[in-house]
Amino acid sequence: MPPPNPDWVKALKPSGPQGSELLQRERDQSALNVDQLATFLFTSEVLERRAKILEILQAHPVFDKSQNYFRGRRERLEAALARAKALRQLSVKHQWSQEEYEVANDLISEPTPYGLHATMFLKTLEEQGTPAQHKLFLEPARRYEYIGCYAQTELGHGSNVRGLETTATWDPTDKTFILHSPHLTASKWWIGSLGKAANHAIVVAQLILDGKSYGPHPFVVQIRDLKTHEPLPDIHVGDIGPKFGYNTMDNGFLLFNHVKIPHINMLGRFSGVDPATGKYIRPVNPVLVYGTLTYIRSMIVFQSGSTLARGVTIATRYCAVRRQFQDRDTPEGSFGENQVLDYTMVQYRILPLLAASYALHFTGRNMLNLYNANQKRMAQGQSARGGGEAKRSPGPEQINPGSDLLADLHAISCALKAFSSTTAAEGLEVCRRACGGHGYSAFSGIGSWYADYLPTVTWEGDNYMLTQQVARYLLKSARAVLTGKTAGTNGITLVFQHFIKRRDIGAAFDVLDNDQDLVDAFAWRVAFLTFEALKHRDEDKQSWNSLLIDLWRLSTAYAQYLAVKNFYEALQAESTTASLDPTTLSLLHKLFQLFAFHHLTSHASEFFTSAATTVRQIQLARTKRINSLLQDIRPHAVRLVDAWKFPDWQLDSALGRYDGKVYEDMFHRASEVNPLNDETIDPYPDSSVLFRTEKGTKAIKSLL
Amino acid sequence: MPPPNPDWVKALKPSGPQGSELLQRERDQSALNVDQLATFLFTSEVLERRAKILEILQAHPVFDKSQNYFRGRRERLEAALARAKALRQLSVKHQWSQEEYEVANDLISEPTPYGLHATMFLKTLEEQGTPAQHKLFLEPARRYEYIGCYAQTELGHGSNVRGLETTATWDPTDKTFILHSPHLTASKWWIGSLGKAANHAIVVAQLILDGKSYGPHPFVVQIRDLKTHEPLPDIHVGDIGPKFGYNTMDNGFLLFNHVKIPHINMLGRFSGVDPATGKYIRPVNPVLVYGTLTYIRSMIVFQSGSTLARGVTIATRYCAVRRQFQDRDTPEGSFGENQVLDYTMVQYRILPLLAASYALHFTGRNMLNLYNANQKRMAQGQSARGGGEAKRSPGPEQINPGSDLLADLHAISCALKAFSSTTAAEGLEVCRRACGGHGYSAFSGIGSWYADYLPTVTWEGDNYMLTQQVARYLLKSARAVLTGKTAGTNGITLVFQHFIKRRDIGAAFDVLDNDQDLVDAFAWRVAFLTFEALKHRDEDKQSWNSLLIDLWRLSTAYAQYLAVKNFYEALQAESTTASLDPTTLSLLHKLFQLFAFHHLTSHASEFFTSAATTVRQIQLARTKRINSLLQDIRPHAVRLVDAWKFPDWQLDSALGRYDGKVYEDMFHRASEVNPLNDETIDPYPDSSVLFRTEKGTKAIKSLL
Repeated sequence: MPPPNPDWVKALKPSGPQGSELLQRERDQSALNVDQLATFLFTSEVLERRAKILEILQAHPVFDKSQNYFRGRRERLEAALARAKALRQLSVKHQWSQEEYEVANDLISEPTPYGLHATMFLKTLEEQGTPAQHKLFLEPARRYEYIGCYAQTELGHGSNVRGLETTATWDPTDKTFILHSPHLTASKWWIGSLGKAANHAIVVAQLILDGKSYGPHPFVVQIRDLKTHEPLPDIHVGDIGPKFGYNTMDNGFLLFNHVKIPHINMLGRFSGVDPATGKYIRPVNPVLVYGTLTYIRSMIVFQSGSTLARGVTIATRYCAVRRQFQDRDTPEGSFGENQVLDYTMVQYRILPLLAASYALHFTGRNMLNLYNANQKRMAQGQSARGGGEAKRSPGPEQINPGSDLLADLHAISCALKAFSSTTAAEGLEVCRRACGGHGYSAFSGIGSWYADYLPTVTWEGDNYMLTQQVARYLLKSARAVLTGKTAGTNGITLVFQHFIKRRDIGAAFDVLDNDQDLVDAFAWRVAFLTFEALKHRDEDKQSWNSLLIDLWRLSTAYAQYLAVKNFYEALQAESTTASLDPTTLSLLHKLFQLFAFHHLTSHASEFFTSAATTVRQIQLARTKRINSLLQDIRPHAVRLVDAWKFPDWQLDSALGRYDGKVYEDMFHRASEVNPLNDETIDPYPDSSVLFRTEKGTKAIKSLL
Repeated sequence: MPPPNPDWVKALKPSGPQGSELLQRERDQSALNVDQLATFLFTSEVLERRAKILEILQAHPVFDKSQNYFRGRRERLEAALARAKALRQLSVKHQWSQEEYEVANDLISEPTPYGLHATMFLKTLEEQGTPAQHKLFLEPARRYEYIGCYAQTELGHGSNVRGLETTATWDPTDKTFILHSPHLTASKWWIGSLGKAANHAIVVAQLILDGKSYGPHPFVVQIRDLKTHEPLPDIHVGDIGPKFGYNTMDNGFLLFNHVKIPHINMLGRFSGVDPATGKYIRPVNPVLVYGTLTYIRSMIVFQSGSTLARGVTIATRYCAVRRQFQDRDTPEGSFGENQVLDYTMVQYRILPLLAASYALHFTGRNMLNLYNANQKRMAQGQSARGGGEAKRSPGPEQINPGSDLLADLHAISCALKAFSSTTAAEGLEVCRRACGGHGYSAFSGIGSWYADYLPTVTWEGDNYMLTQQVARYLLKSARAVLTGKTAGTNGITLVFQHFIKRRDIGAAFDVLDNDQDLVDAFAWRVAFLTFEALKHRDEDKQSWNSLLIDLWRLSTAYAQYLAVKNFYEALQAESTTASLDPTTLSLLHKLFQLFAFHHLTSHASEFFTSAATTVRQIQLARTKRINSLLQDIRPHAVRLVDAWKFPDWQLDSALGRYDGKVYEDMFHRASEVNPLNDETIDPYPDSSVLFRTEKGTKAIKSLL
């Protein structure tokens, strides 16, 4: 630990109006009811639960965050492991539900080496295991005797699951599968919880029967000894090394050298191998995997709003505390500097992201509702068929897989996953930069949060790859409309039908003064881009590859339409208008408009080449509407971020403190916590000594 | 160190065509003469110098990079200090020039604790010190007996130098200055080389004479003991803690409690205090500071091309090695996956950045030429006046400060600094993501490079702040054109005059088929935006603050015009056409067009609301021209990045290896170098043990 500050330093205060005064003034100047809005956003039940769990975590020394930013990889991983263990113990002690456990993880705000065990390993065993396998694997896994991971991605193979190289070859002589990695590129890679923690893995491998490949299937494989935790023979496993973020997780690699596992270790709920004949047992239907992936994507959409809101909270509060320069129009000699948040250029960077955090919140809520509605519908279908007791009976996802809802759900979750995670990731970086130089300090709390979040744009479907699936769905829907082969009940079909009817008349949306028209303009643009792409593909016979850029634009336009629509509809809902006072409601409307106009002007050329708007409308949106929205929202910015109710402990940010004591906190962390200030270096080039501490010296040769 | 790979792992190779074969095929399919192009870009002298220094560095064990990505903050700083010392020793031994020393730093590619000593400290002493001060401070500093830094920024004050709080108060009784930090926000902050290394600082403080402030001035202050290196009394100094990047640098804080320094310690070349009377000696003219800042900004512009090119090199090579999926149009059953670089969506992300790296290279070269021309002109002005021998005689920057060239230089360097550093920083992140999942690994070599580069968008003038200065210059130039009060010789004045003449006739540029017209369309857009902003400011009397967003757009448009123009002119120059064969020249023309069309379509609405282009031209640029340019450039992509001639040692990237052995390198670093694989953890929640190594166990309580 560094020496304490001398007394004369302890006596110093920041100059000018104090951060606490400035934030108080911000809160005083707005009449927005923060508690009412927070309760509407999250429900009081959720807020109370969060507060209760926060108290438990703060009381436990292993969750102390003060050293987090100073630790290297090994120390961070050690601390994360200790926290994972404590969290499991607390979970047992307080009998936490899965939701409560996730709230705790959310408050800790860093991944732990149990991350993939507690999610993908347990979930996959539950969903894809037979009752016998539940007894054999799931039960000890739930007791944390088996600690597992989900090993799919390989060193040479990411998104393309069919290209996986790891093989599981059926050996009829002893009724086993032989797991093998035929090439270096077959090494499992990026697998969370595998590098150090797991003693079991669900390995996705190509099933080989009698020399023929039947595609990738899941197998349970023990990889480490249950006592010594050393790798088992013919298994090479370890941590893949440091990453841009996510360094509290032990992402791992895994190679097999002809490793035998029993027949029962192939997860058998949906497909399998008949041990008597060695014949393949086909799955009842092939869209099984949709369920889990759609759920994960839906959760990413749901979390994107609060992910972004953390950065917006920090940047908004700090920009209200930070003062820099005077306005050029300020008369010479007037006193004091401006709050940075008063500069329109800063507002233009932060406030659309504040709006986006709300837009993504409502969009995410709707996404989950859609997912749950589908689950419910499928469950009803299942119960109508008499339930699913028997082994390999159809799971919930198997009913009505061809229905519109399932296809909609898939496309919507793909489009919104790509859009929402890109918006959150890039928005966080904008927030970090809006904090100026101090945004670059670890103590801002944005950089590490951003770095940990970044893989989200790549995993669970790379954001660019996903747009192809969305475009395929839109093209297919458009074709159905053109040929009249559609039930005409789903959202995008109606949009397309409407577009076709009015295409020659023109749109004439009053985007500047009518919110419904603003939403309709976004719909129009999607329809226009879809039929353009359809013409290129079906009439001009252009190659799919040559259309990828257009299809990416199309998918993005679709996601923006969905987000604008969801935001608008959330504000129209009776549950909303009944819960919020008119001030709050009107402010949320302004956020909706800012969000919509921001995207409308950012993609201006798509809007007027599609004739969704005129050039003049875009100009007015840019020069008049956005400016006046920024002005209207500005006084409420601090209260609007307060409504997200992030505890300081969760944000762990010197800049984003609720009380505005920014400079005191920056200085305290640097001077009194920073362990680098416990030592003195030898700075002279001809000395081979590097550091001196109380314990002795360290010389250059120790590095070599 | 982790245990070695077992034999069966050692025998594994990547599947399919090997990376080395794929890159060889790439190089075989293009006739681009890499050596010719590289020599043209850098000169053979520079390339040979680089090779010679590389050899020296690689032979020295302290520069071994293999542990870089695994080290925590303390270990990284230690290694950087050891390297700084060795570099200084090599510099003396080989009698390196400043340029050669910088080449070495560039190859090492990480900042060291000597960074600010070797640049800003020495340079400021040289430029702002008197001969007596050179003897007193500069000479021991050159011998590394004094190690220094440049302490300007404060905890509460970044860009606004006038707002600095640290005071230097003249005490006439003993002819000293008293350095003092009246508030916590007065603490110097972010100061490179201050946290651990410096024993001296140039402190920028408000000069107070007889109770009156005379603004910020530079003072030399000893801050640590020359023997023990402990802080001197009444000085509180230390490292500010970890950052998003730049963690091999000891950015520091510094507070003074009434610290006395002698009169001679105020740097006195341009202004000072008369020790006899205590009266202020005014600088001959107030634009002195322009020179250094313009130089630093010019260097940022110059380096931006190669900064970005590192990321582009890594991404291009890896995307040629990485194969993923088949094209959707590929017939079922055909063999193998596509190179990722063949997907248009990947080309659309990487190739415009490849073009940008070249555009920035030529723009940076031109920026330096402009700077040097100005230096030369000012030096001539100086010698015409009889030289500058006497104390406080005008320095080189003082001659003709009001000339057009100086104002041009200032505005151009501000505009291009903002544009080029934003382009490089954001481009690096695009390159990282284009590498898919592996881009997130530290071994990609992009993440740390990006993180270290990021402060460039904030320091030496925040990129948003700078746009105000550019806009002010453009508005002033436009006013001069309108009132006829201009010499009419500088570039932007001619653009404005031309615009005014043709404004009512219209532009009618043939942007699709005429490169000069393409450049002119960018000029037209700048003129349009300038006169729009001028109208808002001068006629509509809008506040400066309400115009900031427009002014930022204007400055960006101006920078893009300059970059497009510089690229185009570089290709027209006789030195270019004489040095390059027609194949290379034609390829560079395509890169120019791609760069221009990329920005034209990205800012489409500005181009056609200004009538610089028609909507149809934009559509054609987007759908036809860009696609065909991507197709034309694609086969030469690997050779075009090869021409940057980055040694593998410099890139330190598993993905960007010249030989394409991507997967072997990834695996080697993870499995055989990664120190985390030397230990076994205890994964069970009820065990209080965390790790076991050969040396023993580590328990949770050690963290608490």
